[in-house]
Amino acid sequence: PGWEVSQNFITKTYELEDFRAALEFVNRVGELAESANHHPDIDIRYNRVTLTLTTHSEGGLTDRDFELARRIESG
Amino acid sequence: PGWEVSQNFITKTYELEDFRAALEFVNRVGELAESANHHPDIDIRYNRVTLTLTTHSEGGLTDRDFELARRIESG
Repeated sequence: PGWEVSQNFITKTYELEDFRAALEFVNRVGELAESANHHPDIDIRYNRVTLTLTTHSEGGLTDRDFELARRIESG
Repeated sequence: PGWEVSQNFITKTYELEDFRAALEFVNRVGELAESANHHPDIDIRYNRVTLTLTTHSEGGLTDRDFELARRIESG
């Protein structure tokens, strides 16, 4: 929930308490990304983190994007 | 060195070995940012990390930006 779906990518911005909490969130996402061998674009703006998922090798969205989004949502 | 200077911000893209190294770099930058209470915009693209520094409260570049850039360069 909260993911915007475009033709070629899905994106969501998370608002954390502060910069430190944003970094901790990015590290958790990073672990999930490494496990999945699938890496979102990650933009950190102080306490806001925007994740953008696409499958570069396929030139668009695939199940891998939705699966990683699901894992990120599950924590 | 390697920082691009625009009127309102300075920016540099670092290329690390892989995503994990990029995350470690971001965590080091994050510690320096917290110490300085000055937070760059951070964009992670797999093994590439782009840092952008500006002083939002002043609407442009200040010594704080160059000082944090210097600290990041010193490791």
